Amino acid sequence: MPKVITLPGDGIGPEVTAAAVEVLREVAPDVTIEEHLIGGIAYDKEGDPFPPSTRDALKSADAVLLGTVGGAQDSAWNKLERKLRPESGLLALRKALGCYANLRPVRVQPGLEHLSPLKAELARGVDILIVRELLGGVYFDGDRKIEGDTAYNTMRYTTPEVERVAKVAFWAAEQRKGRVTSVDKANVLEVSELWRRDVQALRDRDYRSIHLNHEYVDSVAMLIVSDPSRYDVIVTENLFGDILSDLAAVIPGSLGLMPSASLGDGAGLFEPIHGSAPDIAGKGIANPAAAIMSVGMLLRHGLHRPEAANHVDRAVSMALREQPTRDLGGSADTKTFTRAVLEALGTPAVG
Amino acid sequence: MPKVITLPGDGIGPEVTAAAVEVLREVAPDVTIEEHLIGGIAYDKEGDPFPPSTRDALKSADAVLLGTVGGAQDSAWNKLERKLRPESGLLALRKALGCYANLRPVRVQPGLEHLSPLKAELARGVDILIVRELLGGVYFDGDRKIEGDTAYNTMRYTTPEVERVAKVAFWAAEQRKGRVTSVDKANVLEVSELWRRDVQALRDRDYRSIHLNHEYVDSVAMLIVSDPSRYDVIVTENLFGDILSDLAAVIPGSLGLMPSASLGDGAGLFEPIHGSAPDIAGKGIANPAAAIMSVGMLLRHGLHRPEAANHVDRAVSMALREQPTRDLGGSADTKTFTRAVLEALGTPAVG
Ligand SMILES: [Mg+2]
Ligand SMILES: [Mg+2]
Repeated sequence: MPKVITLPGDGIGPEVTAAAVEVLREVAPDVTIEEHLIGGIAYDKEGDPFPPSTRDALKSADAVLLGTVGGAQDSAWNKLERKLRPESGLLALRKALGCYANLRPVRVQPGLEHLSPLKAELARGVDILIVRELLGGVYFDGDRKIEGDTAYNTMRYTTPEVERVAKVAFWAAEQRKGRVTSVDKANVLEVSELWRRDVQALRDRDYRSIHLNHEYVDSVAMLIVSDPSRYDVIVTENLFGDILSDLAAVIPGSLGLMPSASLGDGAGLFEPIHGSAPDIAGKGIANPAAAIMSVGMLLRHGLHRPEAANHVDRAVSMALREQPTRDLGGSADTKTFTRAVLEALGTPAVG
Repeated sequence: MPKVITLPGDGIGPEVTAAAVEVLREVAPDVTIEEHLIGGIAYDKEGDPFPPSTRDALKSADAVLLGTVGGAQDSAWNKLERKLRPESGLLALRKALGCYANLRPVRVQPGLEHLSPLKAELARGVDILIVRELLGGVYFDGDRKIEGDTAYNTMRYTTPEVERVAKVAFWAAEQRKGRVTSVDKANVLEVSELWRRDVQALRDRDYRSIHLNHEYVDSVAMLIVSDPSRYDVIVTENLFGDILSDLAAVIPGSLGLMPSASLGDGAGLFEPIHGSAPDIAGKGIANPAAAIMSVGMLLRHGLHRPEAANHVDRAVSMALREQPTRDLGGSADTKTFTRAVLEALGTPAVG
């Protein structure tokens, strides 16, 4: 029986996670769900934003569903020493899970094209999955220094690092339209030359059915705005992926519509990309769509249940059309929206 | 008497440069204009895409106005050894000029908002200048290697490199709205920490009237699409600038509207960012707007004649409204558009 650890966290995290759990129970009643502490609330209760009890629980988990972490700017938590702050709990969690691939679906919901900063005709039907390498490259390489009037960082990759994240992209593409665009700057950078060579070699060896092409990062930055429909799966290294996934995240028009997954060799981490929104916490009006879509990703990538995942994705799309929340220009509160999702799943919810 | 070297080059380069020269003669009749060879045509005539005669001429130039370089994909030029190809002439030219700052204005022309991939209400009034460091950072650092299953490049900056490009940005901002956004990833990268420190120190020392703020590159990638009007001048390092300037270039909706300048300690280089469009070369239908706007930049940044520059910019805006070219959905050919610019300058053109 698969086990999912939930970490509701702070701010609107508990509300949106509760909604997500309702949906998860509905579509995967056999799954064991176990709630643990993270973030500011974990500090308040256990004196540690990533307490040992949570760390231990991860060992038996098949997937982790995270809410949101952190308080308002002027929160007392932000006056703690750095390692005790809520965000440090999140960093420790990510490190403990060792996830090397971050997945960000960028999907413009039918009927919500008007939310996009792009013209509706460009936004319509956009459905991209961005796969970003998460542990390597210039952000983490140890060869780095600032001294006097010079400073440097090192953008380094090795073949095993490239292959493990490319595998995630190819695997995901097999379940989508079968197209992968690998993004690099191989006309200028040796590290990109390696990236391109290794992604291509892996495709030629193990993923012959995938259509793979290679594009330069500056060109993708243009095309993802001027012609986003051209992309299916995009895979890229850490820095390029940071920029491109944040860029692409604006296309659907609301961070409230953006789930994410971080995958490694153990349990994956599934979470909305929006923040903890302390200003509206506890009011029952938070939009749980991204948290519920994170359940969709958990089903697809964590528990390998694509049909249940599709079922959730479709139900969220229907609910967004019928009961949009306030942040999307509608009037549904958290409960109303969640009920709409459960109804769309074919099961009338009680109360 | 200032001297401008023109390098019309290949494809539509000669046509759009001729149009630009007509405008330059009109607004700066005292300037000496001297035409030289570059690119494929230089190879055809002199056996070298950047011939010694051109290199010598640069020594006495105050500014260089470049057309476009290169042939069609299947051009005989592309079968030459690399150093004889048209593009190698361009690289050699840029190297000879030693320009360390690339300037890209991103201006949505009044009345042409519909060309933007963004919604008209977001595109309207956008007027950004992106200043990109052009000679340093990860693209050029010599500490780079690919060997076996590992590869790396080094993102390095020194204080003098940061300061000289930041000066260009501050100077440009003084003539605009006085606001500079410096873009880095200082929360993760030491090289960005140096960048941020030095840009701030320069502003505090010499440009106290400028409003300077610092933003992260991933955040700017989002905001430049979702709220482009927030920016006046953006300054950033080479790789970030490559990505952001190409990204921003899609906002006006046509590369035919995008001039550029590259500035160093000697003569600056002014050129449209569009390609040589060999398919329409010689037909008299190329849009010369970007080449004429490059004259505007040449007047502003090369000859320090801001009034003449403003005069040209306004005339181009009027002509774009009254006589849009075919690529913009209008029907004007190169001559008609150029005449409209000259008329807008207040001088009826002959023929
Ligand atoms: Mg980011
Ligand atoms: Mg570029």
